[in-house]
Amino acid sequence: MNYTRLTILTLFLSFLSIAGHAENTDSLTLARFFSTALKEDKAYSDLHDICKQCGSRLSGSEGAQKAVELVKKILIGLNADSVWLQDVMVPHWVRGEKEQASINSTTLKLKQEVPVCALGGSIGTGKNGITAQVIEVKGLGQLKNMNPADIKGKIVFYNEAFDQSLIETFPAYGKAVAQRWGGAMEAARYGAVGVVVRSMAQHIDDWPHTGSMGYVDSVTKIPAVAISTKAAELLSESLAKDKKLTFFFKSSCETLPDARSYNVIGEIKGSEHPEKIIVVGGHLDSWDLSESAQDDGAGVVQSIEVLRLFKTLGIRPKNTIRVVAFMNEENGSKGGEKYAEWAKTSGEKHIAGIESDAGGFTPRGFSLDVNDALRAYIILKWKPLLEKFGINDFDGQGAGADVGHLQGIAPLLGELHPDSQRYFDFHHTGHDTWENCDDRELELGAGAMASFVYLIDKYGIGQ
Amino acid sequence: MNYTRLTILTLFLSFLSIAGHAENTDSLTLARFFSTALKEDKAYSDLHDICKQCGSRLSGSEGAQKAVELVKKILIGLNADSVWLQDVMVPHWVRGEKEQASINSTTLKLKQEVPVCALGGSIGTGKNGITAQVIEVKGLGQLKNMNPADIKGKIVFYNEAFDQSLIETFPAYGKAVAQRWGGAMEAARYGAVGVVVRSMAQHIDDWPHTGSMGYVDSVTKIPAVAISTKAAELLSESLAKDKKLTFFFKSSCETLPDARSYNVIGEIKGSEHPEKIIVVGGHLDSWDLSESAQDDGAGVVQSIEVLRLFKTLGIRPKNTIRVVAFMNEENGSKGGEKYAEWAKTSGEKHIAGIESDAGGFTPRGFSLDVNDALRAYIILKWKPLLEKFGINDFDGQGAGADVGHLQGIAPLLGELHPDSQRYFDFHHTGHDTWENCDDRELELGAGAMASFVYLIDKYGIGQ
Repeated sequence: MNYTRLTILTLFLSFLSIAGHAENTDSLTLARFFSTALKEDKAYSDLHDICKQCGSRLSGSEGAQKAVELVKKILIGLNADSVWLQDVMVPHWVRGEKEQASINSTTLKLKQEVPVCALGGSIGTGKNGITAQVIEVKGLGQLKNMNPADIKGKIVFYNEAFDQSLIETFPAYGKAVAQRWGGAMEAARYGAVGVVVRSMAQHIDDWPHTGSMGYVDSVTKIPAVAISTKAAELLSESLAKDKKLTFFFKSSCETLPDARSYNVIGEIKGSEHPEKIIVVGGHLDSWDLSESAQDDGAGVVQSIEVLRLFKTLGIRPKNTIRVVAFMNEENGSKGGEKYAEWAKTSGEKHIAGIESDAGGFTPRGFSLDVNDALRAYIILKWKPLLEKFGINDFDGQGAGADVGHLQGIAPLLGELHPDSQRYFDFHHTGHDTWENCDDRELELGAGAMASFVYLIDKYGIGQ
Repeated sequence: MNYTRLTILTLFLSFLSIAGHAENTDSLTLARFFSTALKEDKAYSDLHDICKQCGSRLSGSEGAQKAVELVKKILIGLNADSVWLQDVMVPHWVRGEKEQASINSTTLKLKQEVPVCALGGSIGTGKNGITAQVIEVKGLGQLKNMNPADIKGKIVFYNEAFDQSLIETFPAYGKAVAQRWGGAMEAARYGAVGVVVRSMAQHIDDWPHTGSMGYVDSVTKIPAVAISTKAAELLSESLAKDKKLTFFFKSSCETLPDARSYNVIGEIKGSEHPEKIIVVGGHLDSWDLSESAQDDGAGVVQSIEVLRLFKTLGIRPKNTIRVVAFMNEENGSKGGEKYAEWAKTSGEKHIAGIESDAGGFTPRGFSLDVNDALRAYIILKWKPLLEKFGINDFDGQGAGADVGHLQGIAPLLGELHPDSQRYFDFHHTGHDTWENCDDRELELGAGAMASFVYLIDKYGIGQ
């Protein structure tokens, strides 16, 4: 071995040693994020306060306004470098009185009340409700093959169940949800008078799941409700025995004029590049049936926890880390749109937007909306650090609904990917409660968010 | 390019093509294991039957005997090639009447009943119970620094909490559990009259957690109970205010003569090597406080599901796949010992033993007791196939308590590694129920077990 080669080898080995040292330091920092989050359990405590002090937080509601004020107060309490509210006009839909519904068949001697809830954005039925015969279809596709004469004057019952054979639950939701969103407008084209949609859920139980639905101006608006999966099974079985049974439902929901609300924003200024922004966020609004811990109280408190962890561990980021609690993800996405519009003209440079909006369950990875090179970089450089904490899936495509609006603005968009198995037990129901969120699973998600943000801040994104 | 090099390249490319094809076929087979388990939900149905028809299944109990008969019946119903019972004598401890306990302080005007349960194997207190002053220690280590005069005649209260900062929960259990196992024998050396141990749990709640404890013949046996974490906090706070308070507890547990019981065994004979055995198992016995769905009804039904999935999908294994529902893991491990003793002399060759005994939660990987070369082989060859289903952690050391007895007999020993966050909410309590087990998480574990067994069977273990 000659001298030159020896020198090169020595340099190479010392480089490896430095690289190893950096990796080791990063591992220790990441471990501190996770262990501090788990030990102090602050995200879970914040979630308690949001859930119990504000309750449900539908855009335009009193609960949403309370949540705006509470999150602002929490961020100020953390000594964020700045905290502000960003005005946004939001749709203002209200449910009104609790819905009523029943299956009625003289042939079957059946008069069974069943749990339903109006879909968000639906018109109400009027005070007499709607009573009509029912035609069952397994989703929008099946409706298209029907004879309009068989539908006119009836209630269309969309009963496409989740595909249980899929490993993850979000694809099952993705397959079934079209009937919820488009069911009323499509059924109305055939002359239906109302729509009942099987709840978007994996399990057979008594919880109806609300969620957004759409109308188009060119088609008559008809009312739509979701029915619990258990009642959907009963309705389907009853229809098999008596095609002429009737269904009754009554709802008094309505859409009021748009209301003023806010995105809540707090940040730690970057020490080197204060004008470069890493957004981390969840949505503060929720559906109105519960305090909505998993959707998306979890994402909001995990995002706040990212800021708290940097503060607690005394880590000053090079870039600005900005927490955004978005308003109106559930029924309009006006908060995400507003933030992105503003970001275009703010004179800042957005590096990344990381969202949490899939529940406070054990984190498994991040889905990404990035170019191939950046994904390869993340998998090569950061996955080895993160997988020690069970964060090893970076194959998923797409970012969340709110930071998704930053497409074309920030090169790295992503969403925390937690274990999805139990999400649709709670999603948009009356029992998405703080008690049904596991604190350790929630805190691990916060640790994952902080760790990913830390790596983005420290190493940049190679662009 | 000359001809020879071209030939080599062609051969190499065709090899790649075959390899790619095999991998693709394997991926499809694995996907069918998972999707069939999820869709048919049979493991969850079996779990229902074991939980609801047999109840708790402590060794020597009527519930354990019912479970032996039920699992035998299920395996026969699956057309296993052979099903048999393997005799094993097991310890027979009984709890007797429900325990009573209270914290009493005239100074604090406190007379508070608290939830406790005898630790498995403990002697009872006698009909008057034990009333004594209390000395609190944070685990065995702290006891060793105490003055025996401060302990004599008192109840030792072991109050070492789980370390919340650890990412996984089993290491926290591992750190704290020594006080449960060794607490009574160590305290007795110092003249204590009884032992109260903080429950092995992450959360603060009202559930006492039982579990095994030990005595040595050379030291006086004193009674031991576990106290709920919430009551442990109250006792600790009360002691801080009044060191002279007294604790009362009464238990009537006792150890009866050993009883006859059984490992339940069913198998599909290997088409090529019927004498080569892959064991897949869980333990059929349980603690007596609940129907014990997670510990370890889950492991038993997942193992049965492996056999069912091979049958349902029409896959004939090359080697014999043998399901073993082990008896007596909780308080003696006599079933695991007996099976391993028999395996040494059975004239068969055991290739592998795979266990599930960490709950029916979303699977993350397998911990392994293998040599380094075999671990490297598994990570290189099988991890890429399994990680598509979220099974990507093969770094854990060790196999389960039952198949662990096959060390030196089977070269591949492993245990399913599910998400551990919620396990100690239920472990050894009165609410480890079927309802508290998520069917999809359970079925994913069954899919993981079947997939791993399939790869072992198809490719062998390179030994």
